[in-house]
Amino acid sequence: MTETIESLQHLAEQFGRLQGVGKKSAMRMAFSVLELDENEAIEFARAILEAKEKIHPCPICGNLTDEELCYVCQDENRDRRVICVVEDVKAVRSIEKVREFRGVYHVLGGVISPVNGMTPDRIRFSELLERVKESEVEEVIIATNPTPDGEVTAMYISKALRAMNVKVTRLAYGIPVGTDLEYTDEVTLGRAFEGRRDL
Amino acid sequence: MTETIESLQHLAEQFGRLQGVGKKSAMRMAFSVLELDENEAIEFARAILEAKEKIHPCPICGNLTDEELCYVCQDENRDRRVICVVEDVKAVRSIEKVREFRGVYHVLGGVISPVNGMTPDRIRFSELLERVKESEVEEVIIATNPTPDGEVTAMYISKALRAMNVKVTRLAYGIPVGTDLEYTDEVTLGRAFEGRRDL
Repeated sequence: MTETIESLQHLAEQFGRLQGVGKKSAMRMAFSVLELDENEAIEFARAILEAKEKIHPCPICGNLTDEELCYVCQDENRDRRVICVVEDVKAVRSIEKVREFRGVYHVLGGVISPVNGMTPDRIRFSELLERVKESEVEEVIIATNPTPDGEVTAMYISKALRAMNVKVTRLAYGIPVGTDLEYTDEVTLGRAFEGRRDL
Repeated sequence: MTETIESLQHLAEQFGRLQGVGKKSAMRMAFSVLELDENEAIEFARAILEAKEKIHPCPICGNLTDEELCYVCQDENRDRRVICVVEDVKAVRSIEKVREFRGVYHVLGGVISPVNGMTPDRIRFSELLERVKESEVEEVIIATNPTPDGEVTAMYISKALRAMNVKVTRLAYGIPVGTDLEYTDEVTLGRAFEGRRDL
């Protein structure tokens, strides 16, 4: 006979669904919920529902927001002639922390990866072309992660954009190859912006 | 101007309240919630409330349960003459995995630690004495963690129990000193049970 506290097991399964949470951490977190007081637990549950309900992608750039447009697209001081293309919203956060970049973003929501069935139509690629076509974009900085899929995506996008007569650059290799933008320290990321080169 | 998605920040704070979850992991988990589909998010929120509502300490041993008694205290095949005293419910889980111990438990819900203001009356110590007094207990195995506080607690309890004419043992030092029972592998924990010695 083994332990079967169903509601605890069930809660641990929910934590286990989150990215990067293993079975053991999930159970530890479930236990930890039991140590919260009543109100904290209610607040936790509510926060999950509220975040899901309120947060959606910005219709312009794909960044997350709980308003009509994301805070970058709302900001009139950002330079709309420079678009930084990133894989996901986490990359936006990382780049914003550096306070080096004053342009706007375009969140692809993935990378091209034929092996994983990720074709260009499954990321926000045509939306990017549309944006470049319809507004006065002077430079597109491609800041996909320096992984094989990220590189393939960068090459694919740059080919399409160069045909549209727009300057396409790629972040400099200050970023340690093979890692995620999310884990890059702010100084390195800053250097990568300074040293960006033509593609 | 920095990113201010309030509901995301708020959700990350909730994750950050859980034991062992740092700021960065908390934010990563909050993001991950956004990737759940609608129903999964609702299920997650519900699981938190349900776990809090249903799970309570077993009135006999202090182990967690969502029934009247915990599954160990319900089990008629467990030997009620042997009580294993542990710091918390996580230790119960670890010991149960070994399938070596056939007695019952007593969960202290903490350790004596004067520095942290943990006096014997703040753990389930008098309840243990009561149990030993009122039922036919032959042996109490003290399985507090092999940390300084765990040792102090073990000594304190053994002193009180020996005055009551009950055999008191301590898990053998198969457990690597300075770590938590929770992280001990099952073989080591099994050895610790076999080699337990008189206190």
